[in-house]
Amino acid sequence: MSAAPAASDRLLADFAARKPAALARVISIVENRGAGSARLLAALHGATGHARRIGITGPPGAGKSTLVAQLVRAYRSRGLTAGVVAVDPTSAFTGGALLGDRIRMEAVALDPGVYIRSLATRGALGGLSAATREIADVLDAYGFDRVLVETVGVGQSELEVARTADSCVVVLVPESGDAIQTLKAGLMEIADVLVVNKADRPGADRLRAELKVMLQVRSGPRRGQTASSRGAGTDLSGEPADPPEGGGAEGAHGSSWVPPVLTAVAADGTGIPELLGALDSHHDYLVATGGLAEQRQARLRARVAEVVDLELRARLWGDAATTAWLEGRLAAMDSGETTPFDVARELLKRSGRLLAGEGDDAPR
Amino acid sequence: MSAAPAASDRLLADFAARKPAALARVISIVENRGAGSARLLAALHGATGHARRIGITGPPGAGKSTLVAQLVRAYRSRGLTAGVVAVDPTSAFTGGALLGDRIRMEAVALDPGVYIRSLATRGALGGLSAATREIADVLDAYGFDRVLVETVGVGQSELEVARTADSCVVVLVPESGDAIQTLKAGLMEIADVLVVNKADRPGADRLRAELKVMLQVRSGPRRGQTASSRGAGTDLSGEPADPPEGGGAEGAHGSSWVPPVLTAVAADGTGIPELLGALDSHHDYLVATGGLAEQRQARLRARVAEVVDLELRARLWGDAATTAWLEGRLAAMDSGETTPFDVARELLKRSGRLLAGEGDDAPR
Repeated sequence: MSAAPAASDRLLADFAARKPAALARVISIVENRGAGSARLLAALHGATGHARRIGITGPPGAGKSTLVAQLVRAYRSRGLTAGVVAVDPTSAFTGGALLGDRIRMEAVALDPGVYIRSLATRGALGGLSAATREIADVLDAYGFDRVLVETVGVGQSELEVARTADSCVVVLVPESGDAIQTLKAGLMEIADVLVVNKADRPGADRLRAELKVMLQVRSGPRRGQTASSRGAGTDLSGEPADPPEGGGAEGAHGSSWVPPVLTAVAADGTGIPELLGALDSHHDYLVATGGLAEQRQARLRARVAEVVDLELRARLWGDAATTAWLEGRLAAMDSGETTPFDVARELLKRSGRLLAGEGDDAPR
Repeated sequence: MSAAPAASDRLLADFAARKPAALARVISIVENRGAGSARLLAALHGATGHARRIGITGPPGAGKSTLVAQLVRAYRSRGLTAGVVAVDPTSAFTGGALLGDRIRMEAVALDPGVYIRSLATRGALGGLSAATREIADVLDAYGFDRVLVETVGVGQSELEVARTADSCVVVLVPESGDAIQTLKAGLMEIADVLVVNKADRPGADRLRAELKVMLQVRSGPRRGQTASSRGAGTDLSGEPADPPEGGGAEGAHGSSWVPPVLTAVAADGTGIPELLGALDSHHDYLVATGGLAEQRQARLRARVAEVVDLELRARLWGDAATTAWLEGRLAAMDSGETTPFDVARELLKRSGRLLAGEGDDAPR
């Protein structure tokens, strides 16, 4: 499959021997979706399943990076290793990660039990959540005890990323708005643990109280639904024909999880032990209810669908004749002579063999 | 195709006669991806292309809804009609749109030259941007002079929605953070016009000055690239084999657009005439440089890819035998006996006929 299977085998051997350079190389290949990326991920798949995956999300300026750095320090002091993927929306005109966050991270970056990777989003809008999960898989396979996924922003793609973790921490600050805005941004639904950061500032107590009231409004059964559908069919949800989401496990969530609302001052470490405690409790809850196994199955299901999607797109749009044909139909669509629906139908019809994987060896 | 083509023909006739009830019905069908949705959209395709599409985005609490309501009023006073799609992230436990925004909208909602539709995101993570663009197409086909697309939030999916408009307005407030945070959230890259709203509050002047400095840092050529790739391959970008994005039109963007930074107090209408002026200027710029035609072609290209994607997913995951087969492979993936990559390969192999569209009539 790959152009250089021998080099790839050496890389995998180095990775298995836990050489940091091999880890960095594998992540780069996976991030750039380079040749052999799929082969590497397939080879590492068997080694995944050990790490606890923790998503950290919240609005810009909530202090997520600082909190992540403190979490990493706390895990290290307990003798646990930690890998971090930070999704970093990079502007076209800065061309790289912003300095502030990285400096905060550097304090922990020299420790071999820690690995931090910033994932620039660049133009990769569709591919962001897939790439993030793949890198989390790599960190898991490498043997990190905890894999932290930090996403900046409050949008659907970002929430989706946080959602695929086992436990999701939502970080808020009084400045980021009231509880209603948190609700509107979709953050309440995905939170397993809420943290009011910069809790020494005015408004923190009020925000915490508001959040607690809102969580009381949320009914028990609904929470169970959220947990059981978590992470399933990531890229397919909302489409007319999704893969089944493994329903019927409602019963297992009989005793539903009520997200605790913690306070913290990440900058000086206040509240970090309580956050670790809450994450451990949530993990215990997931194990006890079968939610953890469910989440892993949902991830696998979504992963298959994702690979299938990518392969079909590659078959179709990797074919020069198909893209050229589509370009030739643009004018007719533009004038209203035909429609995108008719063109899509035609395209599917003429690409039957391509889609069936017979493109390379079958005569046209 | 549709179960009831006669009813659908009547609906289309009523729509063409500009009956508001028909508009509402068509949008509902499209929003819910009901039977006949594709047929309706195909039938309306020829009537699109008149409306100017304006995206309005920014962080929660920036006053986007109020600004949209003022824009609508201003367009109406110029004798222009306006349709609005507001993407409304609905929490699982509120079950509907939040009251505040809707009340602000009601002031303009009784005018027949205005149509406002809130689009709940519900679980439809993948389908949000597609549905929003489809509804914008419907409003365009109905004959509205301006179609405004308001997205709450600052994430990638939401930005993607705003991006597919002809002109994109980014609304900020001093409270939503400094210019660096705006940059990190990816808002600077998509802005054709920046508005500092609630400009009577402390910090507004400073934010405006910061934004202007940042825009000066942004180089001319890069802006041209952004404009030419705008809206192309929405759901495919970042994937290894995208449809071509119609490159080579760089020259047309020789004189690049520098987004103006305006101030406004949307609540009392301050700054709205200037915003309308800036939007007109941007439209003139797009017409002069050929950018408008490019954007429409990019939308059509993305539309075809989207319809193809949906159809392939429906063929695959709509097949009970395929999903049952996948469920049967979960345990083997979980144990590491096989990988999602191998399972995807197997799945594609056994589904060749299905993907080629031969699933229904061909014997297995």
